[in-house]
Amino acid sequence: MAGSVFGDILKISTWGESHGPVLGVVVDGLPAGIVVDEEYINTQMNRRKPGQTKYATPRPESDNVEILSGVFEGKTTGAPISMMIKNTSQRSGDYSEIASYYRPGHADKSFDEKYGFRDYRGGGRSSGRETAARVAAGALAGLFLKELGIEVTAYTKQIGTYACKTEGVPSFDEIEASPLRMPDKEASDAAEEFLTELMEKGDSAGGIIECIATGVPVGLGDPVFSKLDALLAGAVFSIGAVKGVEIGDGFDVAAATGSFNNDAFLPGGKKATNHSGGILGGISDGSDIILRAAIKPTPSISKDQMTVDTSDAPKRVSIKGRHDPVIVPRAVVVVESMVNLVLADRVLVGTGSKLGDIVKIWKK
Amino acid sequence: MAGSVFGDILKISTWGESHGPVLGVVVDGLPAGIVVDEEYINTQMNRRKPGQTKYATPRPESDNVEILSGVFEGKTTGAPISMMIKNTSQRSGDYSEIASYYRPGHADKSFDEKYGFRDYRGGGRSSGRETAARVAAGALAGLFLKELGIEVTAYTKQIGTYACKTEGVPSFDEIEASPLRMPDKEASDAAEEFLTELMEKGDSAGGIIECIATGVPVGLGDPVFSKLDALLAGAVFSIGAVKGVEIGDGFDVAAATGSFNNDAFLPGGKKATNHSGGILGGISDGSDIILRAAIKPTPSISKDQMTVDTSDAPKRVSIKGRHDPVIVPRAVVVVESMVNLVLADRVLVGTGSKLGDIVKIWKK
Amino acid sequence: MAGSVFGDILKISTWGESHGPVLGVVVDGLPAGIVVDEEYINTQMNRRKPGQTKYATPRPESDNVEILSGVFEGKTTGAPISMMIKNTSQRSGDYSEIASYYRPGHADKSFDEKYGFRDYRGGGRSSGRETAARVAAGALAGLFLKELGIEVTAYTKQIGTYACKTEGVPSFDEIEASPLRMPDKEASDAAEEFLTELMEKGDSAGGIIECIATGVPVGLGDPVFSKLDALLAGAVFSIGAVKGVEIGDGFDVAAATGSFNNDAFLPGGKKATNHSGGILGGISDGSDIILRAAIKPTPSISKDQMTVDTSDAPKRVSIKGRHDPVIVPRAVVVVESMVNLVLADRVLVGTGSKLGDIVKIWKK
Amino acid sequence: MAGSVFGDILKISTWGESHGPVLGVVVDGLPAGIVVDEEYINTQMNRRKPGQTKYATPRPESDNVEILSGVFEGKTTGAPISMMIKNTSQRSGDYSEIASYYRPGHADKSFDEKYGFRDYRGGGRSSGRETAARVAAGALAGLFLKELGIEVTAYTKQIGTYACKTEGVPSFDEIEASPLRMPDKEASDAAEEFLTELMEKGDSAGGIIECIATGVPVGLGDPVFSKLDALLAGAVFSIGAVKGVEIGDGFDVAAATGSFNNDAFLPGGKKATNHSGGILGGISDGSDIILRAAIKPTPSISKDQMTVDTSDAPKRVSIKGRHDPVIVPRAVVVVESMVNLVLADRVLVGTGSKLGDIVKIWKK
Repeated sequence: MAGSVFGDILKISTWGESHGPVLGVVVDGLPAGIVVDEEYINTQMNRRKPGQTKYATPRPESDNVEILSGVFEGKTTGAPISMMIKNTSQRSGDYSEIASYYRPGHADKSFDEKYGFRDYRGGGRSSGRETAARVAAGALAGLFLKELGIEVTAYTKQIGTYACKTEGVPSFDEIEASPLRMPDKEASDAAEEFLTELMEKGDSAGGIIECIATGVPVGLGDPVFSKLDALLAGAVFSIGAVKGVEIGDGFDVAAATGSFNNDAFLPGGKKATNHSGGILGGISDGSDIILRAAIKPTPSISKDQMTVDTSDAPKRVSIKGRHDPVIVPRAVVVVESMVNLVLADRVLVGTGSKLGDIVKIWKK
Repeated sequence: MAGSVFGDILKISTWGESHGPVLGVVVDGLPAGIVVDEEYINTQMNRRKPGQTKYATPRPESDNVEILSGVFEGKTTGAPISMMIKNTSQRSGDYSEIASYYRPGHADKSFDEKYGFRDYRGGGRSSGRETAARVAAGALAGLFLKELGIEVTAYTKQIGTYACKTEGVPSFDEIEASPLRMPDKEASDAAEEFLTELMEKGDSAGGIIECIATGVPVGLGDPVFSKLDALLAGAVFSIGAVKGVEIGDGFDVAAATGSFNNDAFLPGGKKATNHSGGILGGISDGSDIILRAAIKPTPSISKDQMTVDTSDAPKRVSIKGRHDPVIVPRAVVVVESMVNLVLADRVLVGTGSKLGDIVKIWKK
Repeated sequence: MAGSVFGDILKISTWGESHGPVLGVVVDGLPAGIVVDEEYINTQMNRRKPGQTKYATPRPESDNVEILSGVFEGKTTGAPISMMIKNTSQRSGDYSEIASYYRPGHADKSFDEKYGFRDYRGGGRSSGRETAARVAAGALAGLFLKELGIEVTAYTKQIGTYACKTEGVPSFDEIEASPLRMPDKEASDAAEEFLTELMEKGDSAGGIIECIATGVPVGLGDPVFSKLDALLAGAVFSIGAVKGVEIGDGFDVAAATGSFNNDAFLPGGKKATNHSGGILGGISDGSDIILRAAIKPTPSISKDQMTVDTSDAPKRVSIKGRHDPVIVPRAVVVVESMVNLVLADRVLVGTGSKLGDIVKIWKK
Repeated sequence: MAGSVFGDILKISTWGESHGPVLGVVVDGLPAGIVVDEEYINTQMNRRKPGQTKYATPRPESDNVEILSGVFEGKTTGAPISMMIKNTSQRSGDYSEIASYYRPGHADKSFDEKYGFRDYRGGGRSSGRETAARVAAGALAGLFLKELGIEVTAYTKQIGTYACKTEGVPSFDEIEASPLRMPDKEASDAAEEFLTELMEKGDSAGGIIECIATGVPVGLGDPVFSKLDALLAGAVFSIGAVKGVEIGDGFDVAAATGSFNNDAFLPGGKKATNHSGGILGGISDGSDIILRAAIKPTPSISKDQMTVDTSDAPKRVSIKGRHDPVIVPRAVVVVESMVNLVLADRVLVGTGSKLGDIVKIWKK
């Protein structure tokens, strides 16, 4: 089960299960000298943690991050930064029922077939709980990006069919004012009503997250397989419930013409429009980077569903326990985190693109 | 300009520019013993090459692949396979005009700022010509997958607003019957008409490609950063004009409910539906894998556009030369190729997932 | 400061400083189903820990490993295994003196120049303490290798000029019977006497470790950059004090002739001799793998030395504190661990070398 | 047969067999703007090519490098540089005899067992011919290093028991004056006599290569698994016939004391001695980097040897054909090349080590 390490120079290794005692992440490759603002890290953790609103599982995790290495006198030393988050509320309960069948919309069955073995106490590594580690790592990457003037902001663009009408980049306060992280009161209220209805039926909703990166310099990403959009798409798609990612005008380009879709360059390094979403030919073009991700409805629902048990016999199930009726508002910060990680890694990979810069840094 | 190497165990390195004498790819990591069907490779190459129809640039490339290493007596030896494709029709013409300004929708400006240097004779590594090398490599991966019973099929789902109505997996012949690779005559005819109009105006169109993989065993992909969907999305997004990728129901999941979106497991290893698009928790679930990619309209158009020249002064331009009014039909085989490469790499990475299998292969 | 992640499929990420509260390692990519024998892990940890004899720093670390993830009901699940070791005895003392100058034989000065910043409380990531994490990870890899019949044994071959005369692979008990892990009483006694003299002078000694892997199947390693010997050499050279690595006859091949150095193949899969040290053309040949590493004398000595302070002024220093007069006996298990990790990774990478094996595992 | 790709940011992919029509290498990740001095590349190629003296196989290869991509107007563009070398003299002869048995000292047997398949026309990927591709790539890396003031020089230190007595770094002319690349006439003459005797007996010799890098700035390499010495050792050990690598005092440290082995730091950034060989704690310390590699005697000898045939029956063989009685003089430039590649990659990886440098390069 390889695949828990991410990044080229900035490498993160996440570990831990939803039902183990603790989970964490090791962040290797950050440069020395970054001021580690623990308050910012915990703010990000709190935005992901369960129990913030009635639209999130009430499982009460405090999700404080403990930093175990790599920081000295408040700054990164360049050494790997190990961070740990306790699972304060994992239950030692009876999982024998869950162990006996395969939950629809989950990877239980694939796990059993692939590894011949499954930790049936939760989603294991496929659990959304794993993303807590990504948020901790992403916050560190975010602190690095801030030193360069890059800021990444995500918010709930849509839940069900209720979509925000926003212009530009919504502020942190506008986003956090809504329990659904929808910075448009009308849409947020309508979505709340929709969710309340679904919860009564034991059902769940999906949605769309939009993420905007500002202050991005020209030159992140490389032209072929390390295109910035390819790396962002892969990174965001590695978040459990994501079923689609688009950049700039995204799927709308199918019906557009070239004369509409091309962004005219203006003197002074600007573009007249930003259909490209800030990336051309795989390289950041200096405009805002705009990305959207489609998030599927939470698969764990209490409504009756058909499935099979581990002996392949049909079985009617209703998933009990603490589950989010919609995962989108909590996933907002996970998208931010993955975008932070990709941008920070590309900064590091791209630092030596020009011979002149390299000579300046190294020549004795 | 790192980033021309792709894959974990099956690694490909592409090289070459659109206006150089030749381009190619080195494929490392394929197992020994695969029968190398050169006819299949050339069929795939021909599906990508220019000049097939009036909807493609008439630049007449023969695009035959020359295999230089790694094959002995018709089979792979396990050694790297180097393949080369000649650029028979690059022109030695006058590029001084193109060198003097930045084409809208292209990475010219980002290149100049990032590398301080640009090969202005074409799109360089961002050129679509680079994908010829991917098709050669993808064909080899496809031959490997066929030995396992896996088949990957892509086709044009939509051009402009004209979309195919298809059920199941269209056959090779149905796809190739249409000059646009749209296996629905009505949609194909309407799209042809639409394209003809655009060509008269010097404009271009976008579209959507759908790709379906059948015969995929349970167990490809790993749960965290190497989720199969994440790797597929990243790989397909690394194709130049792609602006969005979705798996299964994709962006439609935003408006769906959990009870609708979950696929019920049926006895015998089947699912009642396939909203998941064949992947759950990042691991193939045994159903068909279904992926769609949004392709932007070709940015090189003869219609007038505004841009800046290299001295940052505004300039009105009209891109001359041989350009596709729509890239979608030729990109179909590129999507197939990237999907082949990801699936083949996951097969190799995942072969040692179970201790029992490993013991069987290695124990003295 | 990238570089704390090791391995291709079996990836380990070590973290932690000698003077932080804790250190650890995340092991990603082990197959599911390996029985995790914690007693074996702790035995290995104890062989590395300080304070075992008078020839080791008396710093009293208990070095028990806490397993935080990836193990369920006593077996690996395939998920990353996070392991943590507390630094029970780091001192909160006064480092201002050490901070003010550069210790000879250490990387203090390079750290300051490279990162512009140094955690002066110890050797930081260059400290031998980091290797505790490698031993924990290496023990897991060793448990995996045992399932395949592969055993790795290292011992002290030489200290100063006192070398063991051994035949074949010494037993665990023979090795552990000597406080210096020299399975030859005469050599061990002489080396003890030599060390006692050095300790009186505040000086230190170097030595040679030999490592033998038995039960290795034919076929580990690949012919070019992933030659098994290249990977073993790189891995063992990544242990702090190593200044040389050789395989088989090593540096003696310089004076040998081909007719002497070639090992004749015998019927039944054996060789008449093993000058190759079990590796031919980068691939294991089925004989025992034999590797030796030269370990430099501990640089921290109390004897007077010249150096410069951080203002580049000359300074006479004598390193106080708890230091090993010879690191070789404790490094024995670190060499074993790195060899375990390389062999285990090669098993995983090589599992899909033959098409037939792959088809058997995957074909639906 | 993964493993033909090398490097972290500067990645090279070599391909081709000794008996195929052509071989080559793709070099990805070099910065833009390096002047490509083809004369230097061909000089390096000529130093490796066969037939230079009577101590090398007379196989007459011209070994000119053809550059197929990545260079525009004489400079690197940042795009992958593909280089090709023709095998002008491969014979289409009868290999049926070689196919029928396993040559001692070669990987033939391991190949057959590992891949179930062997290209018996030569050593395949294990052939020394593969190193021609490394020399081409290493020459490019060398051109990059020269821009930073780093020079890498290797020479034959020893053949048989005949060792050079040299002080400091021998000049190019001193090295090339000897047919054995031994810059000490007395040793060179004695070694020639020794070789002549061996050749008469159909036997072969080994030796030692020393490699010195000057002008290396402080700060290449990182403290844990990417220690500069670890990467150099792994890289040099990946050259076919290498059986040992040492840095600085190497295996002599075993018998040294700490007070002797430690290098005192002097004001002005110098050290009083250089026992460390230019690397402390895995990071370059600003002194010359000194490395030695032990090279085994050529295994292909005409003297009678015992082996088995492919049916496991004993067989007496005498290897005919064109073989070097000693590979050391030709391997000198291969060692230089691998050292160049490692140093260049470390420059690129380390360019973003300090936050301040990164901010200067990227902040808008």
